[in-house]
Amino acid sequence: MSGSTYGKILTMTTWGESHGPAVGVVVDGCPAGIPLSEEMIQRYLDRRKPGQSRFTTKRSEADAVEILSGVFEGKTTGTPISMLVRNQDQHSRDYSEIAGYYRPGHADYTFDRKYGFQDYRGGGRSSGRETIGRVAAGAVAARLLGELGIRVTAYTRSIGPVEVRKERFDLAECGKNRLYMPDAEAAAQAEAYLEEKMAERDSAGGVVECVIAGLPAGVGDPVFDKLSASLARAICSIGAVKGFEIGEGFRAAAMTGSQNNDAFAAGDPPCARTIYKKTNHAGGILGGISDGSEIRFCAAFKPTPSIAASQQTVTRDGKELEISIKGRHDPIIVPRAVVVVEAMAAFAAADLLLSNMTARMDAVKAFYAFEE
Amino acid sequence: MSGSTYGKILTMTTWGESHGPAVGVVVDGCPAGIPLSEEMIQRYLDRRKPGQSRFTTKRSEADAVEILSGVFEGKTTGTPISMLVRNQDQHSRDYSEIAGYYRPGHADYTFDRKYGFQDYRGGGRSSGRETIGRVAAGAVAARLLGELGIRVTAYTRSIGPVEVRKERFDLAECGKNRLYMPDAEAAAQAEAYLEEKMAERDSAGGVVECVIAGLPAGVGDPVFDKLSASLARAICSIGAVKGFEIGEGFRAAAMTGSQNNDAFAAGDPPCARTIYKKTNHAGGILGGISDGSEIRFCAAFKPTPSIAASQQTVTRDGKELEISIKGRHDPIIVPRAVVVVEAMAAFAAADLLLSNMTARMDAVKAFYAFEE
Amino acid sequence: MSGSTYGKILTMTTWGESHGPAVGVVVDGCPAGIPLSEEMIQRYLDRRKPGQSRFTTKRSEADAVEILSGVFEGKTTGTPISMLVRNQDQHSRDYSEIAGYYRPGHADYTFDRKYGFQDYRGGGRSSGRETIGRVAAGAVAARLLGELGIRVTAYTRSIGPVEVRKERFDLAECGKNRLYMPDAEAAAQAEAYLEEKMAERDSAGGVVECVIAGLPAGVGDPVFDKLSASLARAICSIGAVKGFEIGEGFRAAAMTGSQNNDAFAAGDPPCARTIYKKTNHAGGILGGISDGSEIRFCAAFKPTPSIAASQQTVTRDGKELEISIKGRHDPIIVPRAVVVVEAMAAFAAADLLLSNMTARMDAVKAFYAFEE
Amino acid sequence: MSGSTYGKILTMTTWGESHGPAVGVVVDGCPAGIPLSEEMIQRYLDRRKPGQSRFTTKRSEADAVEILSGVFEGKTTGTPISMLVRNQDQHSRDYSEIAGYYRPGHADYTFDRKYGFQDYRGGGRSSGRETIGRVAAGAVAARLLGELGIRVTAYTRSIGPVEVRKERFDLAECGKNRLYMPDAEAAAQAEAYLEEKMAERDSAGGVVECVIAGLPAGVGDPVFDKLSASLARAICSIGAVKGFEIGEGFRAAAMTGSQNNDAFAAGDPPCARTIYKKTNHAGGILGGISDGSEIRFCAAFKPTPSIAASQQTVTRDGKELEISIKGRHDPIIVPRAVVVVEAMAAFAAADLLLSNMTARMDAVKAFYAFEE
Repeated sequence: MSGSTYGKILTMTTWGESHGPAVGVVVDGCPAGIPLSEEMIQRYLDRRKPGQSRFTTKRSEADAVEILSGVFEGKTTGTPISMLVRNQDQHSRDYSEIAGYYRPGHADYTFDRKYGFQDYRGGGRSSGRETIGRVAAGAVAARLLGELGIRVTAYTRSIGPVEVRKERFDLAECGKNRLYMPDAEAAAQAEAYLEEKMAERDSAGGVVECVIAGLPAGVGDPVFDKLSASLARAICSIGAVKGFEIGEGFRAAAMTGSQNNDAFAAGDPPCARTIYKKTNHAGGILGGISDGSEIRFCAAFKPTPSIAASQQTVTRDGKELEISIKGRHDPIIVPRAVVVVEAMAAFAAADLLLSNMTARMDAVKAFYAFEE
Repeated sequence: MSGSTYGKILTMTTWGESHGPAVGVVVDGCPAGIPLSEEMIQRYLDRRKPGQSRFTTKRSEADAVEILSGVFEGKTTGTPISMLVRNQDQHSRDYSEIAGYYRPGHADYTFDRKYGFQDYRGGGRSSGRETIGRVAAGAVAARLLGELGIRVTAYTRSIGPVEVRKERFDLAECGKNRLYMPDAEAAAQAEAYLEEKMAERDSAGGVVECVIAGLPAGVGDPVFDKLSASLARAICSIGAVKGFEIGEGFRAAAMTGSQNNDAFAAGDPPCARTIYKKTNHAGGILGGISDGSEIRFCAAFKPTPSIAASQQTVTRDGKELEISIKGRHDPIIVPRAVVVVEAMAAFAAADLLLSNMTARMDAVKAFYAFEE
Repeated sequence: MSGSTYGKILTMTTWGESHGPAVGVVVDGCPAGIPLSEEMIQRYLDRRKPGQSRFTTKRSEADAVEILSGVFEGKTTGTPISMLVRNQDQHSRDYSEIAGYYRPGHADYTFDRKYGFQDYRGGGRSSGRETIGRVAAGAVAARLLGELGIRVTAYTRSIGPVEVRKERFDLAECGKNRLYMPDAEAAAQAEAYLEEKMAERDSAGGVVECVIAGLPAGVGDPVFDKLSASLARAICSIGAVKGFEIGEGFRAAAMTGSQNNDAFAAGDPPCARTIYKKTNHAGGILGGISDGSEIRFCAAFKPTPSIAASQQTVTRDGKELEISIKGRHDPIIVPRAVVVVEAMAAFAAADLLLSNMTARMDAVKAFYAFEE
Repeated sequence: MSGSTYGKILTMTTWGESHGPAVGVVVDGCPAGIPLSEEMIQRYLDRRKPGQSRFTTKRSEADAVEILSGVFEGKTTGTPISMLVRNQDQHSRDYSEIAGYYRPGHADYTFDRKYGFQDYRGGGRSSGRETIGRVAAGAVAARLLGELGIRVTAYTRSIGPVEVRKERFDLAECGKNRLYMPDAEAAAQAEAYLEEKMAERDSAGGVVECVIAGLPAGVGDPVFDKLSASLARAICSIGAVKGFEIGEGFRAAAMTGSQNNDAFAAGDPPCARTIYKKTNHAGGILGGISDGSEIRFCAAFKPTPSIAASQQTVTRDGKELEISIKGRHDPIIVPRAVVVVEAMAAFAAADLLLSNMTARMDAVKAFYAFEE
């Protein structure tokens, strides 16, 4: 399988370049019978749409999704769901000047070395617009998970040096500020920080946190398809992600076993058989399999590489020069990346959730008995 | 594909439980003509073998590998390489007492929820012995990379609170201390820290760092099979890994674009066309594709969950109880995990290196012209 | 991977229903640098387009393809090639009457059993329109093969009881008759046979033969991905195919070893090293790997199941009834299926051709030496 | 995925050469809780073991299987099942003479072209011994199917020109003759035919037929993973198979729609909802999905290429010579191939049967509701 397909049972195949006619995705392996509409998908796409605040690119795109297959009379049919978004405001001319050199922090150089040519129209396949397909596919996965009462929620945990504080954490705040931060005060500080960086013609990075609530125990496969490994791949495949942590993450490396282990406990009678963990240092995953607690992970995003400040680079033929990138760019991509993290997490979890259904012979028997 | 196979072109399929008769791996897709012997594989396995110091389990295993296929007259044949290691010192009796309860921090509970039974013989498939197959497969991949002058090197970067210092960094030190730390002073401090934790019947975690040197530019696919995403999955699929960072990792999230971008430069005439990066904040990956610099990443390992100190847990039928785990366990797994990280990194890189060969039509033409 | 994706390195993911807004395909893993245009693709699609003769459905579709990604300045970029064809003449009303019952020989019943609902709009995903994606993808593969001098050619070998005769075989005839038969006399007889069947409100089947010329030796993997096994899967995945033969096929079962073995011979000096087979009973494949001779295989197509003659069937709730299918249907699908066979063969061969490039370490070394 | 792995959810990875130390297989994705023992597997292996009659090679192998993982307390655990058979009677010396030339009808030449060397020890990976892994894996799949009342049965349908007659068909006869033919008279004729061919130092081929009974409707995916396409690939991946037919196969190509369509009917009250087909020309598959009837298919095997009669061939350096193959060879492989066909059919069906469980959201909901 080539690199544009993700998943084993529930798969997505994304396609499209920043400056081609359209971008899109094909979702295959989705069970039949899930209510789905363009409106449901659009709500997710609108969260990553450009032009929502002064912190995002001024490129103007409606990003209106069209469902081309796999839905009949308002429900999924079990066959591939093809979704398409036309590119409208491509402005290739803005990029024509960069045809000759490699932008630092971008994939211009590595694509050229790999494929032997340069698509100078704004990143081509490594543009942020590639994530449109991911978000549309993730919306389908989120709908599937929603049918089972599972909910995926991501938010901005930090921007540059400004981090959300536990004591002020309020998820409802996310929708009220432009940075998707669940802490009004941190959001205000982060906005001030971003203004400062923009004035300096510079950019910023940040951390996105994500929680999957309601995932039953048993999801994830023991070795290479651990839930943790699958989330790691799904999240680290998003452009600009440089780090990933499950539960305590790097903090766990400095803890002792007695600090980091989560004790098991049983519910009060008459529910004594309800087993749960008293703490969740593990982030909801033991041995790569969900343990019934909340799944909790973080992703580190690097600062936007396109900056107006002066930088040194070279041309395709190896001549050194000094550049200053104009075009339309986000000084921070983190707020728009929140929904991308949510989408990838939903998709990875849904794929393993389906795969878990064949883990036991008694379930296989029950399924086919029902079929008779 | 089920969860015990890793890779697209170069694949490994691992099998085996801690207390079954053997563990092993099948490597498929390895090019024909690479010199390979049991001695080469054994050198890698010896680095993860138990019983090398007082910081590792006292389980005594020779871990002698047998190559059963895929090698003829000292060279790989292009067909699957099957490798097997017999378990010798299983001591299932040591584990019999745990048949009834779930060990905190272990996969007992999640396996039971997923598969409907409990393999109480020391972790079964989620035991550290599962990594024997990975290391044997990684040794094959390292041999393949070696033919191209590519070298993968991992070491212990920190144990508990003790971290290697840049100014004392000396790779040669790794082989001289029991903790694979490239800093003699840090190693001594870490040993003292571990003695203390052992006295407290507790355990410790740490961070492993890994460098891939000599990887050409162009390796990695743009979207879901980014080199970074593949390494993230490969590394996070190792039991006990809770975090992963490429290049600056989480530090990048707090940097600005002008700090984090790596400027490109060109070599002096007459090599002006040799393009390189002046710094390597990116860890050698741009847009998911290797950029010709060293690939550099870190993995956080949680402390060993098996501790002799008292812990609270529940039985399979939901009765709470207090336990203290005896058996033979490592107070720290990090030193033995170093070679596992190296193995998985080598395998992930080799797989993408092979996949990169079909990226351009001119290479396809050159290959088949040569064939005529 | 779910069932709408074919291939390992070169992949196609098809999508779309007969009566949805569009059908299409995403081709991934195609090397960069291959000249490609909508015109090239269109030539293939035009060969399967309805309405070309009185033997094909009267549904009127331009089947105009749009390339949405993966091509830049007239060449493939190495990223996914998304291609789309809008459905125009859907006429769902023609099918509304069949909403309640299962058509014999169609997938109505099996889809309902699998997915729990019935897409009564003309076959949905199991309609012949699903092959549009295959043909567009096959056109890309044929272009790739063409760059290497490899040519895939299919034609109608028989229709009902009328078979092409060896002594009259003339490939140039294919383009001159409506049935793609390389034998003018057989074509005339077959047309007469079809007229007769149409008058009887019945339908006919036939056999398509396919030849791949110029494929170098070494293509195909030894065990499950044999060239023969891959072609078998690719061809038998076309709706209506009920049989597949390589070389002598079922005739080989009645031959002896001395009759069926192909003797090897060497070219005349100075080309003594040019080894070839004197005969080609094997159809160009030994041990699942191409042997340098022509690849030659046949596919049997069942008669079109939609017939106007009266048939017995049942409704969804198990009531028996007699039906006569109206709508617009082909009395024979074989002539339109010729290009579908060609497309699938080209795709299967191209995928294995790319995969063969990593079979030897000396080729890997040569590739990366070239890269320096 | 490289070519030694078959399957999507239930996978097998085979390994081993004819003259290496052992051959084997790893089965992954098998549900937990299926009773399994070495005895169950051995019964299948004994059916393909050499030395059972004068029509099979005199190579003497016990072919005793060892289960190395994935079974605990007599049941599958859900983790990989590794199975191994040691080679005992390798006799490499018998083959040493063929080191220098290419045997007609064998893979010597194509392996050499692909991998750049020749494993002259009796076929290496393309030897019939490769099928040991397939049969062991198929035995696991057959056990899984057995739990659901599904039964796979193959037998010899023809040998050379001698075919089983419908009116004498008696499955019980298979076990009574050395050729696994369900017709005592045909078996006697076939034995006489084989004696004749052996006297002529020649060999014979034949056809194996296979029936899967009890498979529920709904198994198979609509496009590339059709049940028919999967069986075609599975069966055509067996060495020596040159043709494959589902249901009427090539006969369907000469039938009309009214002859070939199977009418649907409903059971008598009170079972009116039980829908069935009155005939089974389709071989139990409509639109690539099982329809609840028996699955019925045939495979054509070419005559054994190793013959003692004189043949022309060339050496590695292109010198022509005349050879006569000694060694120990089967004059017919069909009787021993019967269980290989059965194994591959069981495996292909079991894989798609598991995959079918995620086709509908209501089943997903039912599974996870049960889990609460």
